[in-house]
Amino acid sequence: MPQKVGFLGFIAYSVSLNELVVFNGYLTVESGVITRMGLREEFESLKYSGSLSGFNIKYMGTNQILIPGFVDCHTHAPQFPNIGLGLDKPLMEWLDKYTFPLERRYSDLQFAADVYTKVVKGLLKNGTTTVCYFGSLHLKGTLELVNSVIKCHQRALVGKVSMNMPNSAGYYNDTAKELKDTEDFVRRVREKQRDLVQPVVTPRFAVSCDTELMTGLAKIATRYACRIQSHISEHRDEVEYVLKTNPNCTSYSDVYDKCNILNNQSIMAHAIHLTDDEIKLFAAKGVSVAHCPASNTRLRSGMCPVRKLLDNNIKVGLGTDISGGDNATLLDAMRRTMDVSTHLEFHGGRPAINWKEAFYLATLGGAKVLGLDDKIGNFKIGKEFDALVVDIYADDSQLDNYDYPPEASDEERILNLLHRFLYVGDDRNIVEVYVKGKQLMMVVYDEN
Amino acid sequence: MPQKVGFLGFIAYSVSLNELVVFNGYLTVESGVITRMGLREEFESLKYSGSLSGFNIKYMGTNQILIPGFVDCHTHAPQFPNIGLGLDKPLMEWLDKYTFPLERRYSDLQFAADVYTKVVKGLLKNGTTTVCYFGSLHLKGTLELVNSVIKCHQRALVGKVSMNMPNSAGYYNDTAKELKDTEDFVRRVREKQRDLVQPVVTPRFAVSCDTELMTGLAKIATRYACRIQSHISEHRDEVEYVLKTNPNCTSYSDVYDKCNILNNQSIMAHAIHLTDDEIKLFAAKGVSVAHCPASNTRLRSGMCPVRKLLDNNIKVGLGTDISGGDNATLLDAMRRTMDVSTHLEFHGGRPAINWKEAFYLATLGGAKVLGLDDKIGNFKIGKEFDALVVDIYADDSQLDNYDYPPEASDEERILNLLHRFLYVGDDRNIVEVYVKGKQLMMVVYDEN
Ligand SMILES: [Zn+2]
Ligand SMILES: [Zn+2]
Repeated sequence: MPQKVGFLGFIAYSVSLNELVVFNGYLTVESGVITRMGLREEFESLKYSGSLSGFNIKYMGTNQILIPGFVDCHTHAPQFPNIGLGLDKPLMEWLDKYTFPLERRYSDLQFAADVYTKVVKGLLKNGTTTVCYFGSLHLKGTLELVNSVIKCHQRALVGKVSMNMPNSAGYYNDTAKELKDTEDFVRRVREKQRDLVQPVVTPRFAVSCDTELMTGLAKIATRYACRIQSHISEHRDEVEYVLKTNPNCTSYSDVYDKCNILNNQSIMAHAIHLTDDEIKLFAAKGVSVAHCPASNTRLRSGMCPVRKLLDNNIKVGLGTDISGGDNATLLDAMRRTMDVSTHLEFHGGRPAINWKEAFYLATLGGAKVLGLDDKIGNFKIGKEFDALVVDIYADDSQLDNYDYPPEASDEERILNLLHRFLYVGDDRNIVEVYVKGKQLMMVVYDEN
Repeated sequence: MPQKVGFLGFIAYSVSLNELVVFNGYLTVESGVITRMGLREEFESLKYSGSLSGFNIKYMGTNQILIPGFVDCHTHAPQFPNIGLGLDKPLMEWLDKYTFPLERRYSDLQFAADVYTKVVKGLLKNGTTTVCYFGSLHLKGTLELVNSVIKCHQRALVGKVSMNMPNSAGYYNDTAKELKDTEDFVRRVREKQRDLVQPVVTPRFAVSCDTELMTGLAKIATRYACRIQSHISEHRDEVEYVLKTNPNCTSYSDVYDKCNILNNQSIMAHAIHLTDDEIKLFAAKGVSVAHCPASNTRLRSGMCPVRKLLDNNIKVGLGTDISGGDNATLLDAMRRTMDVSTHLEFHGGRPAINWKEAFYLATLGGAKVLGLDDKIGNFKIGKEFDALVVDIYADDSQLDNYDYPPEASDEERILNLLHRFLYVGDDRNIVEVYVKGKQLMMVVYDEN
């Protein structure tokens, strides 16, 4: 791809939970960074003034829209070989019988490299330009995930999973090794000096980690200025177990808080059964939540009150949480966020999340959760260009083009195209994918 | 396709809500009818005995399974141009602003023929071999739907929609014309003498039809031995309106019952807010329900207690209900049936519908609802062969093949393949589609 490129056509992005911007216009990218944006009318004069000389201009079709790339705030790369399996089991049994035995295999570096490359390519094909990954317990195995991410030019936070509590699969480390491996991992990712990839400190959750380990991990996160990710309050049985094993703590969040894990660098998945006090604590500490509706329903964990979290000024993004979740796409995560919140509203909950809000959560909301909203999440001069060209009626699309409804304005048309994509589209509608200005060639996905 | 064909490989189908049959074996089809089935071991001796001479045998791959075609018990063919639009509106407003204005256009026969052919092809591509359709108010327009169904060799019940109550779109008939048109429609479909296509009498619902019209339609249904389909108890506002406008009736169902619409030929969509007395009435009269979870959530209508209906011995099938529903596939309907029932269980409802039960509802359950279970819905000697060859790891599939998990038996493998398809698959995994033994060529879908 040339260093200077421009797009002319329909553009859509969120600027806040409540504000979606759509317009017929242009956007230019130089060395991966957005340098100009404006309405279509301005484009012509810009062009004739010569300001666009040297730019490769892409004239988008009237069924296409340019949108920000999707952000997945929580998924487990090593669990992809289990996708769509074992979903009739409750959380704790599912971990012991399906998840830990699979994750153990990632001491095999060839297996790790093969799986991770497929995972990263598959996610990019589905428009997920940024991911916050859980890897496995293995230092070297998880470095293979970092390598795959770098090779495929995805933007990512990658965490080597930390666990020191014994389980029947024998899948854990002792505390000293775990702290050393985590620090090694953080250093080795940083040494790669790739601005697209950052390490994230990753205690699995309070069932798999004792407080000594978590306290040590919090120190590593602080020392290296890393974000920290974990799970919290996913299933009621888990909450009960954590409270029983930590009798000196007043809540699940209190366990983490005492280990210094809760702060404005923390990304907590699920957060379904938080008490009002815990929600206040999250808000006060600036903790972010990765909402994983597919996994929460499939593993029968519960329904996260996302609106309540948002109303309490907690930052929320979406996660696919493979393989507790059964669908690796943000399109599915958006749809299920709408479904779950609608069903909560039916049962007396707060107003459901609408499609524009779901779009925000999958883009800018996720970027805020990962602390990347200065770089990505929407289009703004100076931000890096992570974007998708979406063609609603692409040849192989599920959507037939009936040339209906009649549309009065560009705005109406863009909203209809985006609405349709979010409700009915799939990867076949994502015809171009860009990360930091680089177009990722779909054809490479056929290599493996 | 030759008249005699056989399949050797993994086979799966339901025999009841609770019983899923899976085996490694064979199935033969002669002139559209299933003539033999058995285990793989028997196949070899059958072959060497010469019993299979003249058969074209298809050796299926180890990632493939043969399953019954899907049955969609409720969808609106004319509404497909609105798919994925207007889903932030409540039912009554959505009808007036989106649905009726679009449906009015089907007086244009060219528009009708163009849309309907795309609709039928799109559904077949997604494995829906049988559909119970709502057409539009138009006699000739809806005959175009019949023509499209015949041309594409789909199995279907097709209904000309009946309405005689004024609405702001002017989209209704007077009672005499409506009764005459309906009878004409039934006759003209019957005159085509196509065993795959039957007419179905179709009063839209009690808001659009008065009792005089519905009583007259019930007589036509009886006279011509047709099934009858309508909507019931979709939204609380609708229930309230129907009770207000029929003050002499004790319930929504009572309105229909007094018009003789409720019997063992009736297919009622939604049935979300039925009282216990109405459920008893449905059971006593043998009324069937088309459960449409996508539409119920999207239009904010409510959550149908499917388990309660099944526990009360009511026949239930699945409907996609385009364009109140936003997804025309039975895969989506199965997933959302699981989601909705899981969320009901979270809120104190009966046990959720599991994936094997959802598969039953999308195949044999639907066939029972449409009164076609003597012909289709599963595999049985003497039944007609409506089937799908599913390839879980087809080249363009969303599912990557990680050769995991290790499987101990054929049964385990078939269950894993089917489980994955139902949770994560899409039309790309449906590599062959058969209706009454005829293979529908996917290549025809590119014509239009
Ligand atoms: Zn997780
Ligand atoms: Zn309907």
